[in-house]
Amino acid sequence: MKTIQLAHGSGGKKMYELIKETILAQLGINTDNGLDDAAELHVETSRLAFTTDSFVVKPLFFSGGNIGSLAVSGTVNDLLMKGATPKHLSLGLIIEEGFALEDLNTILKDIKKHCDYAGVTIVTGDTKVVGKGEADGIFINTSGVGEILPETNIKGSNAKPGQAVIVSGTMGEHGVAVMAKRNELDLEGNITSDAMPLTKTVLPLLAKFAPSVHVLRDPTRGGVATTLNEIALDSHVEISIQESELPVSPHVQAVSDLLGFDPLYLPCEGRFLAIVDGDKANEIVAFINAQDQNNKACIIGTVEKTATTGGVMLTTLTGGKRVLDLPVGELLPRIC
Amino acid sequence: MKTIQLAHGSGGKKMYELIKETILAQLGINTDNGLDDAAELHVETSRLAFTTDSFVVKPLFFSGGNIGSLAVSGTVNDLLMKGATPKHLSLGLIIEEGFALEDLNTILKDIKKHCDYAGVTIVTGDTKVVGKGEADGIFINTSGVGEILPETNIKGSNAKPGQAVIVSGTMGEHGVAVMAKRNELDLEGNITSDAMPLTKTVLPLLAKFAPSVHVLRDPTRGGVATTLNEIALDSHVEISIQESELPVSPHVQAVSDLLGFDPLYLPCEGRFLAIVDGDKANEIVAFINAQDQNNKACIIGTVEKTATTGGVMLTTLTGGKRVLDLPVGELLPRIC
Repeated sequence: MKTIQLAHGSGGKKMYELIKETILAQLGINTDNGLDDAAELHVETSRLAFTTDSFVVKPLFFSGGNIGSLAVSGTVNDLLMKGATPKHLSLGLIIEEGFALEDLNTILKDIKKHCDYAGVTIVTGDTKVVGKGEADGIFINTSGVGEILPETNIKGSNAKPGQAVIVSGTMGEHGVAVMAKRNELDLEGNITSDAMPLTKTVLPLLAKFAPSVHVLRDPTRGGVATTLNEIALDSHVEISIQESELPVSPHVQAVSDLLGFDPLYLPCEGRFLAIVDGDKANEIVAFINAQDQNNKACIIGTVEKTATTGGVMLTTLTGGKRVLDLPVGELLPRIC
Repeated sequence: MKTIQLAHGSGGKKMYELIKETILAQLGINTDNGLDDAAELHVETSRLAFTTDSFVVKPLFFSGGNIGSLAVSGTVNDLLMKGATPKHLSLGLIIEEGFALEDLNTILKDIKKHCDYAGVTIVTGDTKVVGKGEADGIFINTSGVGEILPETNIKGSNAKPGQAVIVSGTMGEHGVAVMAKRNELDLEGNITSDAMPLTKTVLPLLAKFAPSVHVLRDPTRGGVATTLNEIALDSHVEISIQESELPVSPHVQAVSDLLGFDPLYLPCEGRFLAIVDGDKANEIVAFINAQDQNNKACIIGTVEKTATTGGVMLTTLTGGKRVLDLPVGELLPRIC
């Protein structure tokens, strides 16, 4: 089995070969003009979005994706959540000595596939190799640059009373898919990660409804509950959500019950939360669901009132109310 | 001793605290308006430079710097090498469980200090925590966006016969400083890493001489010999350099002799190679040396002729000639 060696990261001939014959070849990047220390971008607006994410998911391969597809989805989605058209990605690899070249090829192929789907290009990269036992297989950093769409003003501090809270699909598939694989659970029903670039839903949404969309956020680490708490804190508002409206698939609910998870805290990597004008919310939900058959958007709550610190209140199935707090403790390490 | 725990990376309250009270506090970042998934940048030109680098240097602290100062210097310098004013950085941290909070604070302080020196701002970031034994202390990714200066056209494929090759200072201090610390050598003469942002030399250089500067490259992994080979390959030229002109400090030469290194292959993190118009070379050397007392720029060779594959020829002290090839094998793993 061919594996990565320390020499592949040292700046010499072997690194040159790895980069040219494996990495750039898989990514479909033409190097006739050489590789510079930085890429030159041409942008068409002065308002850009810039984001970074490191991925350390364990295991590297799970139902519905791998660390490569996850990295592209995560960074593309972060740009979308700022109201930007994703354009340019960077790719930083930290690889452990002994990592199988075949696995690297699989990951790179999926990176390319997801870049093509999202309409982004990898324009600059970096590869480091560390010794056996000094990393865990491979870690990936993707940073991204996007062009913010005109007439958008989207940020976490924009939530105001009267606005509606929408989630774009069922919650928790990514978290359950990774935990199932990590624990070698042989789940009936085949839960696959939701990790996907959201380009084909979010760009049309903004093209049509930009002035009515005030907050976009993908509920990754910590899930919907944590992300809503962050928005509530940043906007100084109280958000109220209805347990009866939360979209959870029966499979995810069953596994959550079994393993003791709350789907509200499970990470999604291909869903988004949108806080929109209350009077446009139904129209927006219908529009989101018309873009992609995987979308199961629904209104899960409202922004209730301004509040000094901000928080999230859940109305339970039985009509009780409880504070939905930021989680304390470990949750799910290395889920993305 | 306070250390990083898995919970610091899980998206909950502890992560929120770490990011707010340690990372953002040390970086001097105001979060009154909350933290979005991506930052919004305002740029003043349509030509941007974009680069990424992951840093895995071992040990994390060495004479003259640490992984934090190295990360900022490396990414800032990559933007400068594209003829861009460095502007915005991202910061991605992968931290091993059990890492000392005090060390994290020291690293962050140095990141802030070097950002201030280079005139760049960290605008977006990401923090992941992996278990004990799943990484080696801390790995850092910095990506960067810069604005390319007007009238610059700088790339590795621009070298042409008749141009002169300049190196901006003595070679190999970074490599020797890291290897000395790694091997616990107690070196006389106190060799410190050259790692520093090159902003205060390169920006004035380009302001005055942009049309005469054709290639800029910092000789990091693989050193001057490897970097010149890359340029020769990308430009399809033969580059000729003179051993008698190479700037090496007596200390670096002594340690290299002792440990069996060739300074031509030792990495620098605060030097650059410039390929410039032959008739401007002396003036440019004098200008570089006037910008900073640490600069010891000199002309080390010329671009000789076009060549199908491209390569580098060294004229030795005794007048012999030998091919200076890309290195094969391990060189210095984890040097940056």
